[in-house]
Amino acid sequence: MLGARGGWQAFRRCASLPRAQRAVRLRVREALEAREPASEVKVQGWVRSVRSQKEVLFLHINDGSSLENLQVVADPSLENRDLTFGSAVEVQGKLVKSPHRMQNMELKAETIRVVGPCDTWSFPLKMKERHPLEYVRQFPHLRCRNNTLGSLLRIRSEATAAIHSFFQDNGYVHIHTPIITSNDCEGAGELFQIEVSWKLPETHFFNVPAFLTVSGQLHLEVMAGAFTHVFTFGPTFRAENSQSRRHLAEFYMVEAELSFTESLQDIMQVMEDLFKTVTSTVLSKCPRDVELFHKYIAPTQKDRLEQVLKNKFVTISYNEAVEILKQASQTFAFKPEWGSDLQTEHEKYLVKHCGEVPVFVINYPYDLKPFYMRDNEDGPQHTVAAVDLLVPGIGELCGGSLREERLPFLESRLQRLGLADAYQWYLDLRKFGSVPHGGFGMGFERYLQYILGVDNIKDVIPFPRFSHSCLL
Amino acid sequence: MLGARGGWQAFRRCASLPRAQRAVRLRVREALEAREPASEVKVQGWVRSVRSQKEVLFLHINDGSSLENLQVVADPSLENRDLTFGSAVEVQGKLVKSPHRMQNMELKAETIRVVGPCDTWSFPLKMKERHPLEYVRQFPHLRCRNNTLGSLLRIRSEATAAIHSFFQDNGYVHIHTPIITSNDCEGAGELFQIEVSWKLPETHFFNVPAFLTVSGQLHLEVMAGAFTHVFTFGPTFRAENSQSRRHLAEFYMVEAELSFTESLQDIMQVMEDLFKTVTSTVLSKCPRDVELFHKYIAPTQKDRLEQVLKNKFVTISYNEAVEILKQASQTFAFKPEWGSDLQTEHEKYLVKHCGEVPVFVINYPYDLKPFYMRDNEDGPQHTVAAVDLLVPGIGELCGGSLREERLPFLESRLQRLGLADAYQWYLDLRKFGSVPHGGFGMGFERYLQYILGVDNIKDVIPFPRFSHSCLL
Repeated sequence: MLGARGGWQAFRRCASLPRAQRAVRLRVREALEAREPASEVKVQGWVRSVRSQKEVLFLHINDGSSLENLQVVADPSLENRDLTFGSAVEVQGKLVKSPHRMQNMELKAETIRVVGPCDTWSFPLKMKERHPLEYVRQFPHLRCRNNTLGSLLRIRSEATAAIHSFFQDNGYVHIHTPIITSNDCEGAGELFQIEVSWKLPETHFFNVPAFLTVSGQLHLEVMAGAFTHVFTFGPTFRAENSQSRRHLAEFYMVEAELSFTESLQDIMQVMEDLFKTVTSTVLSKCPRDVELFHKYIAPTQKDRLEQVLKNKFVTISYNEAVEILKQASQTFAFKPEWGSDLQTEHEKYLVKHCGEVPVFVINYPYDLKPFYMRDNEDGPQHTVAAVDLLVPGIGELCGGSLREERLPFLESRLQRLGLADAYQWYLDLRKFGSVPHGGFGMGFERYLQYILGVDNIKDVIPFPRFSHSCLL
Repeated sequence: MLGARGGWQAFRRCASLPRAQRAVRLRVREALEAREPASEVKVQGWVRSVRSQKEVLFLHINDGSSLENLQVVADPSLENRDLTFGSAVEVQGKLVKSPHRMQNMELKAETIRVVGPCDTWSFPLKMKERHPLEYVRQFPHLRCRNNTLGSLLRIRSEATAAIHSFFQDNGYVHIHTPIITSNDCEGAGELFQIEVSWKLPETHFFNVPAFLTVSGQLHLEVMAGAFTHVFTFGPTFRAENSQSRRHLAEFYMVEAELSFTESLQDIMQVMEDLFKTVTSTVLSKCPRDVELFHKYIAPTQKDRLEQVLKNKFVTISYNEAVEILKQASQTFAFKPEWGSDLQTEHEKYLVKHCGEVPVFVINYPYDLKPFYMRDNEDGPQHTVAAVDLLVPGIGELCGGSLREERLPFLESRLQRLGLADAYQWYLDLRKFGSVPHGGFGMGFERYLQYILGVDNIKDVIPFPRFSHSCLL
């Protein structure tokens, strides 16, 4: 995450300059990772602890570049009443080897300047307290100064970068699919409608009703008619009328589309590669941040995740899934039956049955799935080439399918649904060099929940609430 | 953009395998860049031209991996009536050195399979025709198969990746700021409101009126209280009631926020570095794609851009800008006067005056700018530490400022504006370790327009229209 090289080059250049020169600004992470002592160093950040002893004053400084704080050792004469937990400081001094085993370097302060004091009485975070996630969620504008949320945001940033890299390294073109759309991706969920206050309700700003996107898939399919590999990674929206720990009104989705792809297995391979590559990158780039979650939030998650990364994901068909459920000793609220959707209780059972690992379920009933999924032309149990990836604790993490590229199949299905006019453009794509293609989507927040073992989805987004707060 | 290494590793592994093995699939770009001939190669893509001669059949194939097509040479016996412009094909054969100077490799076809035929009569794109941008804009779902739009989308993808890399390499944490917000960033433009159709108009889905974001700045400022460097890059929205070639309802914005920053120059340096780094990356990663624009769309842009990358951006103050405008021989529709906003005509003149290069204008009148900009405490001409970056042909490309980190200044200003209650959370940030900070935003589409010399902003987005089409 850090441009440590740049920082150190700057540092080396300045290290031999006369004292009158400005001190070199180092980030906390750079200071902690420094290999050699150095004088004339400046570190800026927020005070995470103050401990005043008779002979020495200890501070811990954090600037968001790492979970670890930098220890500052100072003469007690440098103390002042504004130097409190939560205040912002600039410390100049010497970077020296720390006598403590747990820390590589510490900063011997020559000057300490309080840049911004903190009203500790009204500050909702308290020194050295491990605040529960529910507590800090009440303070959307301040919780990023809490250790857990700091780690989460660094992990989220690294995972985002790793997703971009994965697709770029594999030759995908990144497409910004539209957020405002008139297309509802056929009932993928409740839609938010957008309007402007200064127009009459019956006259639409865009001349037609416009919604927030629930998926970029159909737009990606357009692009898959010119580029063999495309992806998008952006916000999607569902007006789910619930205060759920599993759902968000606004969430991020990674979606990819591959053309000249005749096999569902090829799509599943990309899903598995994406998951494993991004997870390995996050584990290696933010080890301490991930460790915090695996230590305090989800203690069993670490070993499980390592197992998952080593083994191939399990694949079962929908038919097999229904048989497994029917033979289960457990009784379900929804009786498992061929032709019915898998409920959360079913998904959980299947994942448990397969050993608490990610499980691909493929070839779902034709009548359960949207019009764009490719007909398997089988029977009497008629299925489409669809796949869901189920993971422990979450349920569905990814969903994908081959798309129906054959004009006659698509045309008759859309006509039966009364959608042929609305999707004329989509039918058009099948007239001009249509190719077998498929793709998938992965919910980014669910991904983070899974790898970190976070129970409430609101704890893996930067701002936790969409209501009861001015800060939306 | 391409994972050429991966492709070639796979290729080498298979090259010595017996003929019964499946041919190695290569993308067009990989085939064109191959260093050695190879047999048993498979290329898939769309036919960009067919030329049938007595002794030989020539095809040009494109798969979106590059602007250049791969030439396929085949025996006329392989021709069939579905093999037309726009059809999708799979060609197997030998990759050989091309006898033509302009092309490195060509494919000697052994088999040609038409995967998806094309109804050339109704296909709006025609073989070897250079369609104007206005023409292809009418076909939002097909224009990506046009050369210019193909190049644009590859450039957009590379520029996006370069922006992410720039911030990651410099230690910034990527924050996904909310799209749905109750905060209007104080009058940055007309807002889109969001609702659900199944609720009464007076009962809001989120309990309060909710809008599409016009800027992630205030949310980034929250994060700049815990991380010294943060950025966001995502969609923003303005309900501008115009069919303009300069404005979009939905556009992408890069925004960054830096804390412990006391000088506007530090912000300007990041703006300049971002522009130059991303532009250099795009020029080196997509030379042929950029060349297409600089050859056919904006012939003078290439040399100018090279000059811009070599020289430091010019900086003038708002005061100087007004003096320059007052002394201009040109007459303006809006008379230049201290205290008035710079109009597009003024910005154009200033850029011209400075030699058609990017120009920073700094220190704007206090009363012109929003509440969060830092008071310069000067007078009698009272200014704030704001900066706009003006570029030729576009006007404002970036805007930024130092933010008012001092509680008393901010409090009294918000009180005068009657906004103190609504922005209580924002005032809160100034109570708990507030530090000097600043940031900026850059319009991504305007950036692309500028470097490529594209006149209409609708030509630098993946889908050109928000009305009159089902495909929004």
